[in-house]
Amino acid sequence: MTEIEPAGGKVYLVGAGPGDPELLTVKAQRLLEAADAVLHDALVNEAILTELPASVAVVDVGKRPGPDGSRTTQAEINDRMVERARAGEEVVRLKGGDPTVFGRGGEEAEHLAAAGVDFEVVPGVTSVVGAPSVVGIPLTHRDHASAISVVTGHETPDKPESALDWDALAATVRNGGTLVILMGVRSLPDNVAALRSAGLPGDCPAAMIERATWEDEQTVTGTLATIVAEAEAGGIQPPAITIVGDVVDVRERVLGHLARGSSERRIPAVSGTGPRDPQAPELTHPP
Amino acid sequence: MTEIEPAGGKVYLVGAGPGDPELLTVKAQRLLEAADAVLHDALVNEAILTELPASVAVVDVGKRPGPDGSRTTQAEINDRMVERARAGEEVVRLKGGDPTVFGRGGEEAEHLAAAGVDFEVVPGVTSVVGAPSVVGIPLTHRDHASAISVVTGHETPDKPESALDWDALAATVRNGGTLVILMGVRSLPDNVAALRSAGLPGDCPAAMIERATWEDEQTVTGTLATIVAEAEAGGIQPPAITIVGDVVDVRERVLGHLARGSSERRIPAVSGTGPRDPQAPELTHPP
Repeated sequence: MTEIEPAGGKVYLVGAGPGDPELLTVKAQRLLEAADAVLHDALVNEAILTELPASVAVVDVGKRPGPDGSRTTQAEINDRMVERARAGEEVVRLKGGDPTVFGRGGEEAEHLAAAGVDFEVVPGVTSVVGAPSVVGIPLTHRDHASAISVVTGHETPDKPESALDWDALAATVRNGGTLVILMGVRSLPDNVAALRSAGLPGDCPAAMIERATWEDEQTVTGTLATIVAEAEAGGIQPPAITIVGDVVDVRERVLGHLARGSSERRIPAVSGTGPRDPQAPELTHPP
Repeated sequence: MTEIEPAGGKVYLVGAGPGDPELLTVKAQRLLEAADAVLHDALVNEAILTELPASVAVVDVGKRPGPDGSRTTQAEINDRMVERARAGEEVVRLKGGDPTVFGRGGEEAEHLAAAGVDFEVVPGVTSVVGAPSVVGIPLTHRDHASAISVVTGHETPDKPESALDWDALAATVRNGGTLVILMGVRSLPDNVAALRSAGLPGDCPAAMIERATWEDEQTVTGTLATIVAEAEAGGIQPPAITIVGDVVDVRERVLGHLARGSSERRIPAVSGTGPRDPQAPELTHPP
């Protein structure tokens, strides 16, 4: 049996940030331009990919059904990274947001290490922080937000939603902290009901931000009593992030002077079978 | 009374990331190079500032005692931002990590809006995510980390440490989630004792990362039973971040193939009265 020796290739697990190509890090930009191959998720901005040198092989490994229903499994992604690195390639594995926040970066790192492939993690601007901050909602504020809790609204099928400790999450908010729910568009009514059952009042501030920093970004604000109706009226679709806590009120106080400049690089909206498709899995939300 | 009209200036509340200048975003880099003035915190890498064009006024407003004991108050920082923006300047307010994660960015935004000054938030790579990920600790992993809780070890003097709900934080870890404690070097023994009292076992994995992505970065790993001794043996100083949860074990499994490249820009260690000074306030930790 001939053992295949690593030939000096390497995999970079890189965060692309929430969407705006200018929210890539300088390091991510440098690595992308020098890579042999970029294996990217569904929710990475096209504008990042189309400007890469022709020498870079750009491969969509987004784990969502394509027009023909095909999808790339995690095992296939792992195999492709290992094969290319063993062939000596410098591979950028590009994920929306940050690769290690609900992004399976840890699993991919373990797979690479077990396969004898060198890797490096290049953190990105996580949507947990970036999405609310650009629309005027800081995750913490003065003394009243001393804690942040981050959860996913959707869990794996064998792990019911109720695995989340809603009493503890409600306590975070009651004590002045902030709760962030990723991938919680479809489970919003259930999540709101759980927080109300855990004792949070109807006037507790809440907000949802869809596709932060993309051209078709949308924000709705309200309270636990109104946010379900607001999200429906606003047509909020996955991917969106939900924020619960007093910090939501900051937006109203600053909105009149929140002057967001446009990116130097155009941000086209995705189309077709992408994330605006209500049938698309929410797991493609950039973490 | 003559009212002073805003003259078209603007303040950008910008995150500088954990330390490595290459972990600035492309947008932050662009804004820094075009700014009239940069008001920066103590824990922003010198390498970011020394390479700026001579046209940029670089002002250290780090809220730590200088050699002469002087310090800039938050009110002074607010005043300087407003004055410069009213004079028509483009001002970058540069903070370590992300400006809205325990970084007072929300308060500064409110102050600017109340003063009639336009502003924009440019999110950065928060140390909450970036520090553990670069040393091989993903904040979430597979199905077992469905929640992240982030707290500060130090709180304001009028708000005792016990304001944190240690039972809820312990529950996050017990359910397979991850607990992140910022600014918790001096309070480490108290925090560990609180988590043990709340029922976490002595063999629960824990890690501390000091000055992630700086030249003098240090990481120690252990368990709740050993981390206090490990931190002491390793000489861990503020600023450092503490991670508690099963994800810490990922580091051991991947460390043999964690191949971190050097930054394209040199990262000098700070010296003198900077953060290695054990008397320096921990609040300068990049969020």
